Amino acid sequence: MSISDRAMVELKPQAGSNPKLDMAIMTAVRDMYDQASNPNGYIFCSIAENKLCYDLLKPKLEHDPNLSQLLANYSMFGGMACFKKSITTMLENYVFKCAAGEVSPNHLLVGAGTTCLLEALFFGLFEPEDYVMIPSPMYQAFVTDARVRARVKVLPVSMTSIDSANGDISFRLSVAEFEKVYAHAVATGAKVKGVLLCSPNNPTGTIFGHEELLSIVDFCKEKQIHLISDEIYSLSMFSDKPFTSIYQVLAGALGDSVHIVSGFSKDFCVNGYRAGYVYTQNAKLMHYLMKSSVFFSCSNPVQSTLKNILTDQPYLKNYIETNQSRLKQHYELTTKLLDENNIPYLKSESGMYLMLDLRRVMKDITFESEIKVWEEIFDNAKVLINPGKTCMFDQPGFYRFIFTQPEPVLRLAIERIAKVYNNLLNQNIEKLYISTGQINTCRLFKRKEFKME
Amino acid sequence: MSISDRAMVELKPQAGSNPKLDMAIMTAVRDMYDQASNPNGYIFCSIAENKLCYDLLKPKLEHDPNLSQLLANYSMFGGMACFKKSITTMLENYVFKCAAGEVSPNHLLVGAGTTCLLEALFFGLFEPEDYVMIPSPMYQAFVTDARVRARVKVLPVSMTSIDSANGDISFRLSVAEFEKVYAHAVATGAKVKGVLLCSPNNPTGTIFGHEELLSIVDFCKEKQIHLISDEIYSLSMFSDKPFTSIYQVLAGALGDSVHIVSGFSKDFCVNGYRAGYVYTQNAKLMHYLMKSSVFFSCSNPVQSTLKNILTDQPYLKNYIETNQSRLKQHYELTTKLLDENNIPYLKSESGMYLMLDLRRVMKDITFESEIKVWEEIFDNAKVLINPGKTCMFDQPGFYRFIFTQPEPVLRLAIERIAKVYNNLLNQNIEKLYISTGQINTCRLFKRKEFKME
Repeated sequence: MSISDRAMVELKPQAGSNPKLDMAIMTAVRDMYDQASNPNGYIFCSIAENKLCYDLLKPKLEHDPNLSQLLANYSMFGGMACFKKSITTMLENYVFKCAAGEVSPNHLLVGAGTTCLLEALFFGLFEPEDYVMIPSPMYQAFVTDARVRARVKVLPVSMTSIDSANGDISFRLSVAEFEKVYAHAVATGAKVKGVLLCSPNNPTGTIFGHEELLSIVDFCKEKQIHLISDEIYSLSMFSDKPFTSIYQVLAGALGDSVHIVSGFSKDFCVNGYRAGYVYTQNAKLMHYLMKSSVFFSCSNPVQSTLKNILTDQPYLKNYIETNQSRLKQHYELTTKLLDENNIPYLKSESGMYLMLDLRRVMKDITFESEIKVWEEIFDNAKVLINPGKTCMFDQPGFYRFIFTQPEPVLRLAIERIAKVYNNLLNQNIEKLYISTGQINTCRLFKRKEFKME
Repeated sequence: MSISDRAMVELKPQAGSNPKLDMAIMTAVRDMYDQASNPNGYIFCSIAENKLCYDLLKPKLEHDPNLSQLLANYSMFGGMACFKKSITTMLENYVFKCAAGEVSPNHLLVGAGTTCLLEALFFGLFEPEDYVMIPSPMYQAFVTDARVRARVKVLPVSMTSIDSANGDISFRLSVAEFEKVYAHAVATGAKVKGVLLCSPNNPTGTIFGHEELLSIVDFCKEKQIHLISDEIYSLSMFSDKPFTSIYQVLAGALGDSVHIVSGFSKDFCVNGYRAGYVYTQNAKLMHYLMKSSVFFSCSNPVQSTLKNILTDQPYLKNYIETNQSRLKQHYELTTKLLDENNIPYLKSESGMYLMLDLRRVMKDITFESEIKVWEEIFDNAKVLINPGKTCMFDQPGFYRFIFTQPEPVLRLAIERIAKVYNNLLNQNIEKLYISTGQINTCRLFKRKEFKME
């Protein structure tokens, strides 16, 4: 018997998808790298897991003195009071950087990870077929998080800024770009109801500045649309530039239209624990989230364990600082190794990633060539990276690379990529080599106009 | 700024809802019974929590020797292989009662509790505005689980059977009743796409027999609609009647149209842990569930801890047997105390509940009087029970009562209810007393025709 139409549509390959890429994780999982047992297996540099700090987390994660019968029973929907309190204190001290007691637990709702909370926001703020604007390149799963069940559509807004002098690429939030995309979408009948920022940004690692963020707040207010700030990497900083929360930009006055979503997966290295939170001052939204929270309740023992981390203040301070210093070390090691191997990349400031620039080994500057180089690296280096196209990057030839592996694995991954890269560069030099001049023309690469579905 | 229409509609009181009842949990949470600190507080006999076995579970729940960095990372979507294997073995031994190795982990998907898995099935099998038939009285949250986000509607099918000789009420699945409701719904243009059974049944405690279940399977096959069997209480047995899984009824050949959903909250007393599973042989449905499982992933440490319980075979056997014997003791104690206090009830065979029959203190046999008696008990006994109307029971005057409290709490709850009940019975005897003859007329109580929304 058939399943529902809304489920069937998700089983069909999405337009422009690549079967090999779609199956890459499953292929690699069956033949995963392990130093001892499978040294020639696939290395995952495509999944945002921070593997640098388990030694610090181990005593807290593997022993919780507060487990009890109370936790086996239902707890308050939307999060246990003690856990919520510990989160608001952490936000005050490290993320929102505001006065103690300023952040009310009543504005906080806990759920089983940022993915399901983001979906809850899509349900709560938008109708089916509404569009939400997301700066691109973007976290690749935003599209499915919005679409699969909440039926919300994504409108990418390019952050790409190309230096006309040297072709250097950087990323910024441009109101002009937002206005252009918005006007185009509205003209074609689309209902654009919100903006979703990933700040600091995945996959570029860009930290947005106060003015830049304020300009987007103003844009949203002017259009009377919601703004969601996904700040899941807010503590994963490794540059001198400080993180600015949307909370700081608005001096805590988020009103009914600005909402923050975040979680523990990234900054606390516990993707597998499933815990996150929404901060909103919109009472109706909070009421709705509470009502629907049965669908995304966070496990009580997880709440208890993470609360232990957040309430041990000296431990927490040391953890955050050590994690940031290890991220910095690994970023610097990564760029050093890439430099040594003459592999270009875009500079990153936060998160667990940077974008490799592999345009010099592409036959031409197209997404078809991008996927071919990805395939070379997947098949011959046995390293998984994310092609820019999957992140809706408008410039072909870039790949998100996760560097938060243990050092030997990181070294091996780059070594393997370098071998394939330099092989491509040297052996097929006539066919493949694209001169610097040619690469610079990529600034003229016409951004693929977003096709309204 | 406004939230979405689909969220706003959930904030409005539902038709026929009672504000005091809607707020009862919040009211009671703020003044909760505690033997030492708040002996006059509210006692919850309305939430299906089994508090009888934590002593057995404590060593397993509070210490997991397998916690490790592996669990901090992402695990396989749809459940860790070792956890899935432990569930299939448990199903073979205790639920499906079939040959070892017969149940394939490929037909099993793990998620963060039965609620979100049920919602995933609603998305996967039905379209918005489709109807699913559910025997009533029913688990009260089925209606919201289906409606809030998946927009699926519930069509109650009465299980009430009234003995014409003595007015005794029992519950059974009647194909005639299913046919009647189906025909009526289809005639009014409703798309009826499935049946959801809660088997064994919450809130009645009824264990369905093989023939009865087979008749519903046949009904579904004839109508070409899906059948979901929610078997979350399958190990919470306390009568001599054995549980029959839909898996047994079909000798394991569930095909594409029959699906099982279950979880650990009830049989393993861990509502707060959030873990459940779907068993389906429908490959497309499984594919879809895997694709959408990012929204309801079960926490890795929870999977690990529950796996420890399931893989310790002597422990598991002892746990299940001891839990069942304690359920039996508590059921028998409950009925003894109710008998001593002359409070009628409907017999139960499984689960954590029975239905109190408080019709004798009702002014008349109406749902208005039912809620008034509920209010007397809430205000004056300070005990929370579930009025039958919230379970879509078609006969007024019955209340689900959860008896899996620690014995002193159970005794106190019944003592308090008895006091209010007997006060109502004695003090207002002229006004309130309904003779046995009058009660028997309730068999003529016209079932409220289900109003299509």
